[in-house]
Amino acid sequence: MIQNVNDSKMDTKRHHILNAAVEVFSRFGYRKTSMQDVADAAGMSRAALYLYFKNKDDLFRVLMERHHATATAEAEAGFAQTAPFERRLSAGLKAFVLSAMAPVQSSPYGQELFEANNTLAEDLNVATAARLQQLTQATIADAIEAGEISLGKVAVTPTLLAELIFCAIDGIKKGSDGLDQIEERIDALVRIVASATGSAG
Amino acid sequence: MIQNVNDSKMDTKRHHILNAAVEVFSRFGYRKTSMQDVADAAGMSRAALYLYFKNKDDLFRVLMERHHATATAEAEAGFAQTAPFERRLSAGLKAFVLSAMAPVQSSPYGQELFEANNTLAEDLNVATAARLQQLTQATIADAIEAGEISLGKVAVTPTLLAELIFCAIDGIKKGSDGLDQIEERIDALVRIVASATGSAG
Repeated sequence: MIQNVNDSKMDTKRHHILNAAVEVFSRFGYRKTSMQDVADAAGMSRAALYLYFKNKDDLFRVLMERHHATATAEAEAGFAQTAPFERRLSAGLKAFVLSAMAPVQSSPYGQELFEANNTLAEDLNVATAARLQQLTQATIADAIEAGEISLGKVAVTPTLLAELIFCAIDGIKKGSDGLDQIEERIDALVRIVASATGSAG
Repeated sequence: MIQNVNDSKMDTKRHHILNAAVEVFSRFGYRKTSMQDVADAAGMSRAALYLYFKNKDDLFRVLMERHHATATAEAEAGFAQTAPFERRLSAGLKAFVLSAMAPVQSSPYGQELFEANNTLAEDLNVATAARLQQLTQATIADAIEAGEISLGKVAVTPTLLAELIFCAIDGIKKGSDGLDQIEERIDALVRIVASATGSAG
């Protein structure tokens, strides 16, 4: 019981530090941020900070874990809505992409933070992308099961359609100019998929 | 007149060298290939080779120019076929992607050659992608004009649809495992676009 209380205090403190770290990283970028900067922003000593995080890489990785968990939870909520297929697909994909990209877009050091993420947390990126593709596939399978859509006309499996949607999402994330264009393109992608599977309108 | 004959001889010789260079680069990769290797493969002296190409980077860039021109011409021929929209779109996109990726896929040094291309000829990549997107957009506009397809149901412009197709193609090129999967995914993409625009079957 006492252990649980301590765990929970530890968690609260870690969240407090991570919130401070988000601020500092987006203001100074990855390279220029020091553990001292994070400690200052969190209102604690550098020594105390090291009780919670081994080093800057460790702190950043835990930050990315939290970030991925949030983006995934938002996508899950979008996919799980009580709404037609087109709305569920759109909500899930947009929640994920916009939540995942928002910090990169809003910081002047976005590109550097994006690269730090790719270097320090590539395995998390891969796992999260796989999870989201799985959720998309399940959403498609559910809609088929419910008679909402049919893949017969386009002769693809739910797996292939989900893969293709994620290839498109990947290209959209990399090739678009800002969040507005990303959103416009995801909307168009979803309308095309809905129309092709007979669920549009 | 004599000038033209010389130009044409020069061109023939350059093509002969470039064909030899393709062989050598795909066997040894970019870094390990020397101008001497290319000269040997072309059956000429290293000194003579330098009359045609300034250095290895220059030779590689000219090789990439020829490669892009070939891929673009093959795509143009595909798009220009006398065939229904779905077949034209499929032929154009596949001709381009498969022609562009074939050398990378068939060499054990594919990744290294791909990176050399990105470093030495990024401007060509961008220009070729823009040209292909333009051809796709023109193919879509022609099909609308001819009453073959309609974008009303999906509420996108020909520009947005062409952009979206190229985002998907980009994701497919990067996220697929070999040429067979790339082809399977492009086929599925084209069926979905055709179905959504009312031209399937």
